[in-house]
Amino acid sequence: MKYRVIGNFLGNVLKIEAILLLLPFLVGIIYHEQVAYYYLSTALITFIVGFLLSLNSEKAPVFYAKEGFISVGLAWILMGLFGAIPFIISKEIPDFINALFETLSGFTTTGSSILLAVEDLSNAANFWRCLTHWIGGMGVIVFMLAIFPNNSGNNMHLMRAESPGPQVGKLVPKVKETAKMLYIIYIVITLLEIISLKIAGMPLYDAICASFASAGTGGFGIKNDSLASYSVLIQIIVNVFILMFGLNFNVYYCLIKSKNRKEIFKMEEVRYYLLITIIATLLIAFNTLSQYGSFGISLQQSSFQVASIITTTGFATTDFNLWPTFSKAILVLLMFIGACAGSTGGGIKVSRILLSFKMAKEEIHRYIHPNEVRKIKLDGKVVEEDTLKSVGLYIQIFLLVFLASVLLVAIDTIDLIESFTAVAATLNNIGPGLNIIGPTGNYAALSDFSKCVLMFDMVAGRLELLPILLLFAPRSYKKI
Amino acid sequence: MKYRVIGNFLGNVLKIEAILLLLPFLVGIIYHEQVAYYYLSTALITFIVGFLLSLNSEKAPVFYAKEGFISVGLAWILMGLFGAIPFIISKEIPDFINALFETLSGFTTTGSSILLAVEDLSNAANFWRCLTHWIGGMGVIVFMLAIFPNNSGNNMHLMRAESPGPQVGKLVPKVKETAKMLYIIYIVITLLEIISLKIAGMPLYDAICASFASAGTGGFGIKNDSLASYSVLIQIIVNVFILMFGLNFNVYYCLIKSKNRKEIFKMEEVRYYLLITIIATLLIAFNTLSQYGSFGISLQQSSFQVASIITTTGFATTDFNLWPTFSKAILVLLMFIGACAGSTGGGIKVSRILLSFKMAKEEIHRYIHPNEVRKIKLDGKVVEEDTLKSVGLYIQIFLLVFLASVLLVAIDTIDLIESFTAVAATLNNIGPGLNIIGPTGNYAALSDFSKCVLMFDMVAGRLELLPILLLFAPRSYKKI
Repeated sequence: MKYRVIGNFLGNVLKIEAILLLLPFLVGIIYHEQVAYYYLSTALITFIVGFLLSLNSEKAPVFYAKEGFISVGLAWILMGLFGAIPFIISKEIPDFINALFETLSGFTTTGSSILLAVEDLSNAANFWRCLTHWIGGMGVIVFMLAIFPNNSGNNMHLMRAESPGPQVGKLVPKVKETAKMLYIIYIVITLLEIISLKIAGMPLYDAICASFASAGTGGFGIKNDSLASYSVLIQIIVNVFILMFGLNFNVYYCLIKSKNRKEIFKMEEVRYYLLITIIATLLIAFNTLSQYGSFGISLQQSSFQVASIITTTGFATTDFNLWPTFSKAILVLLMFIGACAGSTGGGIKVSRILLSFKMAKEEIHRYIHPNEVRKIKLDGKVVEEDTLKSVGLYIQIFLLVFLASVLLVAIDTIDLIESFTAVAATLNNIGPGLNIIGPTGNYAALSDFSKCVLMFDMVAGRLELLPILLLFAPRSYKKI
Repeated sequence: MKYRVIGNFLGNVLKIEAILLLLPFLVGIIYHEQVAYYYLSTALITFIVGFLLSLNSEKAPVFYAKEGFISVGLAWILMGLFGAIPFIISKEIPDFINALFETLSGFTTTGSSILLAVEDLSNAANFWRCLTHWIGGMGVIVFMLAIFPNNSGNNMHLMRAESPGPQVGKLVPKVKETAKMLYIIYIVITLLEIISLKIAGMPLYDAICASFASAGTGGFGIKNDSLASYSVLIQIIVNVFILMFGLNFNVYYCLIKSKNRKEIFKMEEVRYYLLITIIATLLIAFNTLSQYGSFGISLQQSSFQVASIITTTGFATTDFNLWPTFSKAILVLLMFIGACAGSTGGGIKVSRILLSFKMAKEEIHRYIHPNEVRKIKLDGKVVEEDTLKSVGLYIQIFLLVFLASVLLVAIDTIDLIESFTAVAATLNNIGPGLNIIGPTGNYAALSDFSKCVLMFDMVAGRLELLPILLLFAPRSYKKI
């Protein structure tokens, strides 16, 4: 392991975080909040540590797969640790585990909260919570790749470790250019959402926070009832935007590059993502009809919750705990499907599910026509055997982590639904589960041990398992 | 599709079932039960239909994979349909869907019951319920292969379709000899259990029924409280025997062939099966200690339930619905692991889970040492890529069937735990789930639609998915 390479890398990540911490400081100043200075001091501490870490380390790092993955895993944990400091020292979340849980829940765009009443927090704190979503959505390392001079080295491994999906989505051949392009698209759509929400009557501060939380498909709200108290128009705008952030960003790239526009219609993942969303919305709308009385209301509520869960955002406009079992079962299923690869959403990803389906179909076909050799295609192109194998393995490893976590969390939760959906909601980066951790509840009642398991799941889910598993594999540190 | 080949095969299966139906007839005669004659008449009908089906069809069938798999799938459904007749015409289970559910639950060794009070049934009926477990455990087609003259053809496909596990367990090169050997071992251990239970004080009739139900890892009881009212000694004997039936039958073959005895210690699946059983037993024993007051009692109860669930038998000696969440979570996990390949148990099978674990470990290893090529081994031998691939696909297809079923059953069950564990208990051929379908409840309250979904799951689980999926794939019937 090349520790000096990793030191430099982590130092740079902390420097970026320090700069980002100045934003909630500014918000605090605007609102004349005393708490602002805690963000300033944390920014200073973070910058100094970052500076010290980059001293005496290699300036032109060469990353191999292992170092790249472990560095990214470590970077995310460090970001959580430093990001939690303002909550602790301001005593807004005095408990260390709770503060770390909230911060990691933010960065990983999970949106599970341990707070009983978010409205009691300062504006700076709520801004910071939503900003962590926004940074975590596209990824701080992608951001770093976009702005830092690309000296040398195989930065692809870094990008791969942080970007979701079975294949690495490079828009353009150069990693740096791809990262830049992704962030430009990200910033533009976020701005569009802020403006739309402002026009629809949301206060600017609320609009910025809600847009950050939806852009990262995070789901932290700044109201105790999430988005339920805002107007229907605002809910519909958020509904549309979270669905947009759950799309593969390739779509927007193709929209910009006019000659590639036809490519969009070839993207099977996008088609199935929209198809699943529409079917789930209609099924739930009919299933909850008697509860809401009017199809218009049940359709709007169903549409919002389906979008919120499949994109793994986790905003709530209604208490879906009270929905019939069938609707709840659909929501739980959507939790695992998740959004598109190359989006800011979590979950297993539509493309993996799609490839898994295709493999299953092929396996059955192989028994019907044993002598026929067919290749599995996605978007009209043959998918490599290696990709298929890793999709299968991803689902298997995902299951192992999922089941082990459910077992550990079951030690202290009250019922199986809670331990099952708590893990589903964190490993898939959604936020709320069912029963006491449902949309009207929170994670405060869980033990510190369970919270640690769920924090592990959040980071493992956001980085798609391998970086975090490598980080905890003892063999990673053996000398070769 | 060669329909004449399939006709002859199905005819033979029905002839065997007709002969087996004479056994409950005899039991009814012994107990002077009027109901006995319903079994005699069903035997006659079944034999006539079987005879007609074998007329005018190929005598020396050649089975290809597709025909073999579809034939086995069809055979199991037919067995269920004809086996349900006595329940319906005797009015002991007058409803068609319920009677079919009970019969398929028997043949597939699931043991889920729709009966509110089994003690009200005639002795003939309870004997038939337990006999279906015994036949289904080792498989009627394996039985047929053992007794019918082996004319020609690739009977391996038939054996493969009915025998559980990722690889085909041939004890000896010839299919016929393997099938014979398996049934001899099966009969001997069943007899040993009957004798042991009789000596321990169980009435002979009870001992035979309990032995049949444990040999097939089925789980139908002839008492309303399953095995709870029998003595602790009897419970311990059943405990030992169900664990034995959950073992890979290769173990017994190696025990007989003295020169192969060392092989037993090489069998990783067996080692892990026992290890998982011991760990789960201890964890639950400690977790339920406060409930039972004494470690002796909690250990005995925990040991019995763990063995009952991991072998997918489903007998109960206590209401584990009342156990703490952690213990219930362990039981649900064991439901999916299941017994050894080549046993009479269901579930995903220890060997598949083991191979899945090894693949996951290799995938992580591949990132640490990208240039090192290592093969995955089981029992010291390299596992072929094809086997690994099909293990991965099995788990994926299993998940798809599982999730689709949960969604369908969720339409009418009262809570998510019920729909989830109902599917887990039937697809893994266990029997009881949690809450109203728990050890003290039954499946009577479910709708006909849910019962149909669960019947599909039982057969799909017992035949390890492919035969049943092929049967329902429209493409199977297209001319090539």
